Amino acid sequence: MIERQLHLGAFMRPVSLHTGAWRYPGSYPDANFNFTHIVSFAQKLEAAKFDAFFMADHLALLNMPEEALKRSHTVTSFEPFTLLSALAALTSRIGLVATASTTFDEPYHVARRFASLDHISAGRAGWNIVTTSNPDAALNFGLDAHVAHGERYERAREFYDVVTGLWDSFDDDAFIRDVESGAFFDPAKMHALNHKGPELSVRGPLNIARPPQGWPVIVQAGQSEPGRQLAAETAEVVFCSPRDLASGKALYADIKGRMSKVGRDPDHLKILPAAFVVIGDTLEEARAKRAHLDSLVHYDSAIASLSIALGHDASNFDPDQPLPNIPETNASKTGREQVLRLAEQERLTVRQLAQRYGGYSGLAFVGTPQQIADKMVEWLYEKGSDGFNVVFPYLPQGLDDVVERLIPELQRRRLFRTDYSGTTLRDHFGLPRPKSRYA
Amino acid sequence: MIERQLHLGAFMRPVSLHTGAWRYPGSYPDANFNFTHIVSFAQKLEAAKFDAFFMADHLALLNMPEEALKRSHTVTSFEPFTLLSALAALTSRIGLVATASTTFDEPYHVARRFASLDHISAGRAGWNIVTTSNPDAALNFGLDAHVAHGERYERAREFYDVVTGLWDSFDDDAFIRDVESGAFFDPAKMHALNHKGPELSVRGPLNIARPPQGWPVIVQAGQSEPGRQLAAETAEVVFCSPRDLASGKALYADIKGRMSKVGRDPDHLKILPAAFVVIGDTLEEARAKRAHLDSLVHYDSAIASLSIALGHDASNFDPDQPLPNIPETNASKTGREQVLRLAEQERLTVRQLAQRYGGYSGLAFVGTPQQIADKMVEWLYEKGSDGFNVVFPYLPQGLDDVVERLIPELQRRRLFRTDYSGTTLRDHFGLPRPKSRYA
Ligand SMILES: Cc1cc2nc3c(=O)[nH]c(=O)nc-3n(C[C@H](O)[C@H](O)[C@H](O)COP(=O)(O)O)c2cc1C
Ligand SMILES: Cc1cc2nc3c(=O)[nH]c(=O)nc-3n(C[C@H](O)[C@H](O)[C@H](O)COP(=O)(O)O)c2cc1C
Repeated sequence: MIERQLHLGAFMRPVSLHTGAWRYPGSYPDANFNFTHIVSFAQKLEAAKFDAFFMADHLALLNMPEEALKRSHTVTSFEPFTLLSALAALTSRIGLVATASTTFDEPYHVARRFASLDHISAGRAGWNIVTTSNPDAALNFGLDAHVAHGERYERAREFYDVVTGLWDSFDDDAFIRDVESGAFFDPAKMHALNHKGPELSVRGPLNIARPPQGWPVIVQAGQSEPGRQLAAETAEVVFCSPRDLASGKALYADIKGRMSKVGRDPDHLKILPAAFVVIGDTLEEARAKRAHLDSLVHYDSAIASLSIALGHDASNFDPDQPLPNIPETNASKTGREQVLRLAEQERLTVRQLAQRYGGYSGLAFVGTPQQIADKMVEWLYEKGSDGFNVVFPYLPQGLDDVVERLIPELQRRRLFRTDYSGTTLRDHFGLPRPKSRYA
Repeated sequence: MIERQLHLGAFMRPVSLHTGAWRYPGSYPDANFNFTHIVSFAQKLEAAKFDAFFMADHLALLNMPEEALKRSHTVTSFEPFTLLSALAALTSRIGLVATASTTFDEPYHVARRFASLDHISAGRAGWNIVTTSNPDAALNFGLDAHVAHGERYERAREFYDVVTGLWDSFDDDAFIRDVESGAFFDPAKMHALNHKGPELSVRGPLNIARPPQGWPVIVQAGQSEPGRQLAAETAEVVFCSPRDLASGKALYADIKGRMSKVGRDPDHLKILPAAFVVIGDTLEEARAKRAHLDSLVHYDSAIASLSIALGHDASNFDPDQPLPNIPETNASKTGREQVLRLAEQERLTVRQLAQRYGGYSGLAFVGTPQQIADKMVEWLYEKGSDGFNVVFPYLPQGLDDVVERLIPELQRRRLFRTDYSGTTLRDHFGLPRPKSRYA
């Protein structure tokens, strides 16, 4: 058996996912619309041999209170198809994963854009299928209220069938281009999909040649029951956000188990939890960096996040004291317990707790490169994950730290590639190229 | 008064619009999905100081009989947003005009993608608004039949209002990014559109900063009565396809006249007819090149086009004889007369006529660089146009001929810029930057 290696994606927002990051010393507060910065990030990640550059996407302003919104750089940024296509022109190996919604877009458009990106990038495109959880998006697409959760996932499943069917419109060898005879393609190798389903009706064929990868890599990030089922049936990569190894292992076992039930090889899906990585020369230094970053989240915007996590209005608590005793409510048992545990473990004041929740509260690896590599190998060998979708706390420094310090440590331990062994995103993830349904 | 100068767009299909071009000696039959070729075209056009690279788009296979389809390279190519974004990364001045349909897309998506392309390209994006004439597109977007022409244009007009409104979501100076105080943007400078109209309902705001150009340049290519009216009310560039100077002048006067009626300055719209340009050392050589190109259109696919133009089945005529006398029908008077005139002027056989119609039958300038420059200046000074959207007969040679031979001739005559005087597409066209509706 070959040793297991990590797959690493970069979970990108131009300034960072952390809402205080634009104020961190050395950061680029204007990165949301500064293409030059993003190019430098993508090129560094490629030099470090990352599997993929992953771009999240939202179809409305993030639904947070104005107090928080106006203080956060997460309000706006580039649209993924345009951004990743531009990055495709300036990179040559790293995968490019765009988020596209099955609730608010059309399969013919989605199929074309991913096929086109796959051609432009010579086989590096991936599609993060989302059903869009922000209810405000509905208001930007002609609706008065969000589409119901179940219906969103039914449409998502059908949408996937249509998009992959459209990618198969032309056989891989349909284009003969025989100058002598004048035959440009073989019509027997072109297929109309003629899909008519409950949600979608699409004739085809797609007016694009089959993508170099056959199909761009299918990525999924939903975590509800139907989200996991969709992943088990269709996904080749799953982005998720377990908070600790125990819940990571449970999710991992659940999704891979579902795959076996639908007859898929569990190796053909890679599970990558989002991991916030803060590196220091010592554990103390790494923690201090994180504390400084958290302290840059404005208290007025942070307190709302803490209140939500607690299920209790925290705005009257003394910010500079430890969390007072608060009554248990039924609504928020897990959230509340998590907060209490965190407050105790790290001895945080109300202010620090609030800033943690207002900044970034998911799975975090904070420490020296060696400590973080130890954690990563633990997740990998305990079957908590097949790698990680790295979240940079601040950019460019947090990215440089990963690229210059963590990656070499992982490479020394043979946990990460020292060069790409192939050229496509499928190659990087070790995924098979799908056969056409007409083959 | 400054002297009038031509504006030049490149009306691109990767292999050419001419259906025989992929068989022309030296052409790139695989250019539809060969990004490297297209990059070289865009970079040459930029070196020649073209105003814009214009990418047509279709949302279904072109609706031609299979006999013609299978012999034409026009069946497929890159999708415009992905292609032009990738080209944005490898060019720095040339404008990038993408076609997007108001009938089969959503204004929130269209607004975002153009805004994003405008940010990535630092102000070089343009939107060719089309209502999509190919009825087959409807079948790829959940419909059984095409949306009626009038309704398409009503939606287009409303769609334009919504998209431009979304571009104004943030004032130009909304983003303060004050690291000290923690204010990222000023909420008073963010505007929700709250549009509710007969066709569209969109709340906003757009989650993208106002584009560098304020609004990307608005382009329009419809020629029907409502198409011209839409252009007069909204467009800043019109692509059109008059066949001769007389009809060019009529269209020019009509659209600029309509602008005055709606209170717009006629100088704020540039009219660019599509012009097929074939260059030779002599007129004879240019004609021979064109005849050779036409001869590469397969007769079986060409004859259908001729029959349509004549309004008469031409498949039983002797291909190598002149056109026989055919009875006049009411249905196709103009078409028929045009064909007869052409057959007589150029003394074409049935085969040659068919191949002309099956290849490219629009306005053509065929001759030496001097002769073509003479024609162009005539159109410019007779108010037939403000420039041209150049159609290359075959690539790369036809493009190289224009860039290396026609452009220098136009520059010598001071009819075309020798360098860009600004950086944005608006700068190239001399168009004002629109004020925000909230200013
Ligand atoms: C790592 C990660 C990335 C995500 N990225 C996006 C995104 O870019 N856009 C989006 O609308 N939702 C995104 N989501 C949300 C999921 O698509 C999904 O809506 C959410 O996890 C709720 O799951 P459910 O709808 O299955 O209940 C992401 C989720 C995770 C865990
Ligand atoms: C130069 C030129 C370019 C055009 N490009 C496109 C295109 O890319 N996609 C498209 O659907 N229609 C295109 N059209 C068609 C027009 O948008 C329009 O549908 C057609 O001219 C019919 O006009 P009408 O709908 O106003 O009657 C183009 C037309 C012209 C003259």
